[in-house]
Amino acid sequence: MPPADKNRTKFLLDEKDIPTKWYNIQADLKSPLPPVLHPGTGKPIGPQDLAPLFPMELIKQEVSQERWIEIPEEVRDVLRLWRPSPLFRARRLEKALGTPAHIYYKYEGVSPAGSHKPNTAVAQAYYNKKEKVTRISTETGAGQWGSALSMACSFFGLQCKVYMVKVSYQQKPYRRIMMETWGAQVVASPSPDTQAGKKVLEQDPNSPGSLGIAISEAVEDAATREDTKYSLGSVLNHVLTHQTDIGLETQRQFEHAGEYPDVMISCLGGGSNFGGFTLPFLAEAIHGKDIRFIAAQSAAAPNLQGEYRYDFADHAEMTPLLKMYTLGHQAEMTPVRGDGLRYHGCSPILSLLRHRGLIDTIAYPTDERHVFERARMFVQSEGFLPAPESAYSIACAIDEALKCKDSGEAKVIAFNVSGHGFMDMEGYADVLGL
Amino acid sequence: MPPADKNRTKFLLDEKDIPTKWYNIQADLKSPLPPVLHPGTGKPIGPQDLAPLFPMELIKQEVSQERWIEIPEEVRDVLRLWRPSPLFRARRLEKALGTPAHIYYKYEGVSPAGSHKPNTAVAQAYYNKKEKVTRISTETGAGQWGSALSMACSFFGLQCKVYMVKVSYQQKPYRRIMMETWGAQVVASPSPDTQAGKKVLEQDPNSPGSLGIAISEAVEDAATREDTKYSLGSVLNHVLTHQTDIGLETQRQFEHAGEYPDVMISCLGGGSNFGGFTLPFLAEAIHGKDIRFIAAQSAAAPNLQGEYRYDFADHAEMTPLLKMYTLGHQAEMTPVRGDGLRYHGCSPILSLLRHRGLIDTIAYPTDERHVFERARMFVQSEGFLPAPESAYSIACAIDEALKCKDSGEAKVIAFNVSGHGFMDMEGYADVLGL
Repeated sequence: MPPADKNRTKFLLDEKDIPTKWYNIQADLKSPLPPVLHPGTGKPIGPQDLAPLFPMELIKQEVSQERWIEIPEEVRDVLRLWRPSPLFRARRLEKALGTPAHIYYKYEGVSPAGSHKPNTAVAQAYYNKKEKVTRISTETGAGQWGSALSMACSFFGLQCKVYMVKVSYQQKPYRRIMMETWGAQVVASPSPDTQAGKKVLEQDPNSPGSLGIAISEAVEDAATREDTKYSLGSVLNHVLTHQTDIGLETQRQFEHAGEYPDVMISCLGGGSNFGGFTLPFLAEAIHGKDIRFIAAQSAAAPNLQGEYRYDFADHAEMTPLLKMYTLGHQAEMTPVRGDGLRYHGCSPILSLLRHRGLIDTIAYPTDERHVFERARMFVQSEGFLPAPESAYSIACAIDEALKCKDSGEAKVIAFNVSGHGFMDMEGYADVLGL
Repeated sequence: MPPADKNRTKFLLDEKDIPTKWYNIQADLKSPLPPVLHPGTGKPIGPQDLAPLFPMELIKQEVSQERWIEIPEEVRDVLRLWRPSPLFRARRLEKALGTPAHIYYKYEGVSPAGSHKPNTAVAQAYYNKKEKVTRISTETGAGQWGSALSMACSFFGLQCKVYMVKVSYQQKPYRRIMMETWGAQVVASPSPDTQAGKKVLEQDPNSPGSLGIAISEAVEDAATREDTKYSLGSVLNHVLTHQTDIGLETQRQFEHAGEYPDVMISCLGGGSNFGGFTLPFLAEAIHGKDIRFIAAQSAAAPNLQGEYRYDFADHAEMTPLLKMYTLGHQAEMTPVRGDGLRYHGCSPILSLLRHRGLIDTIAYPTDERHVFERARMFVQSEGFLPAPESAYSIACAIDEALKCKDSGEAKVIAFNVSGHGFMDMEGYADVLGL
């Protein structure tokens, strides 16, 4: 790496600098995560309980206590298409705000699917392929995860079935077309293809669906077919581990910038982009480094303000029980444009760290006016159009930068733009009245 | 630059390697371009004839015979947000095709507006700002150009009015919202805001509009307002010159790859992405280098197969006359998904080079089946979703690569992906039946 150079707009790394190992924070948690419980027996589950759903390598990673997990060369070969992603110094935004803060953003919108989600989708598709799985089922809400897995399955020659929350399926035809272009089969959830879907449709034929219901459908699909495993795009430990590419690159890029973050911000629904961005830095915080972490959430689903207890990951109570911050697995949540933030529970890893006081949270009102107005300031100064979820990260970062303007502090503020918003422009129109 | 390294997937340059000068091929044309003629007198026009429409610096650039034109630091400061753009070796596509050809693509979809268009939009906005213009008018068809200019005007604090071809305005609300998010005013063309628009609406109130009509409206807007100048996103010499960033970077990236293109391909409507990508290489061809250049066009507007003669750039005969390959400025053109290719004339620079036999052309059928099927092969192997226009470049490159498979030749094929297709997915759905 060249010497620190403070004058640049973007900090790029070479494709040789894509991490060769993922960081697994379980090795640094001091006391281990609470066990995952079987929904029937209430006892801790073993690998065989998860075998119908996941390939064995991912089950191992889920409970691994190894600090570093080798990234297979076949996975890095795909990541090379867009990784390392750039870290930007938001010089134009700083100027527009008139803040002494130094603002940086990592930009995951450069991936072909347009978000951070392919970081784990590619890994999951690879391990499934390696263990001779030929078909993967999953759910998607806003569509970012379904897009990522569809692409990953296309790369490894796997079939992919996506249960897409019905309201999204209807409102976002482009997302469906995108997944189908990569070769996936996409159905609106609740669907008549599963018992879980049928049950909901019997009670309410016009159900708009929810992420919880779609998870139930995808899990049932995998559990009842020999050729199929299930894939989840957030919440689980192995997902967050795969996402640490983001934070590991960011660490090197900050070396390159000759700075270090005082505040790290990202939006949080299930936790995959927040975790990927912050876990390598949270490890340093565990060891005493002074960094403030803020999860930007929606008041529609302020799960980090919920209870820290065991709960299901899905609506129909088919998944194991996870110890996490939760609003209750059947909680009603107001629809918002940042749909990816609308999930009842937070990943067990981040929940534990929150429980230990390492993660702050803010929940923005469901009218989303503040969030989209802040996002527009970013769009007009930095150019890039963020996904509605990423708009929450931006709003929080701008709020913090304006506090620095008041206090005169030149804090280093880093946030993650988890995806672009090209396919979500109706959010801008509705909220900003365009 | 590090030594040539053939094993990489992408060839990145540092932001310090953004060109400091644009390349102006007029210095290397041996005999000069035919003069631009006044539509009233039929005599060559002078700078003062163009002054109501363009800032003086752009008028100078339009006729400059200087080989290199300094890029202002303020322009490079904006380009830094996404330039240099990556050059990819399409290893996964090569493997999928089983071709011995080495396939490379330059990817302009990384710009915040999603295409190559900001390369000139930023420059044009800057020169207008510098000459105290406060408002710019323009037209847009598919929306890429309007998006780029809206963003550029946002960066330089200029008002922007976009006349958007009505059929696009209706079919692509996301594009409109995007432009408005950057602060532009967008109206459907033909509009009641201009005499040109009113005239068309009187004859046909349901006119779907056309690029030619929208140009007439935007030109009239600028010609009749003191505070406003006009901006064009293609065809003109200064536009192509600004786009040479693409080809200049590509030259350095090929040094890095340790290869040199045998065939260069890009789609061609007015000529801005084709010109930007190829002009620095066409200069080498003028001096004897053996490169084949292929313009991928639509049978809806195969302008390079038209006549080489003087014609208007717009529908209402308001623009000066340009010597170019043209289908006639009031030619009817079948609607296609690659709407940016649907223009009656080709840039004078490229027309002259075509006339001298340096540029080949192929026009794909208007059902676009072949084009989108080829694009899907690219999507499923390389991941990135190209704009419908860029799908033509891909189709042509794959066709050439398959010829190499038949002949056993390991040709180096380079093409330009001028933009992403996230906002144009209905093309994939309609043509591929998704």
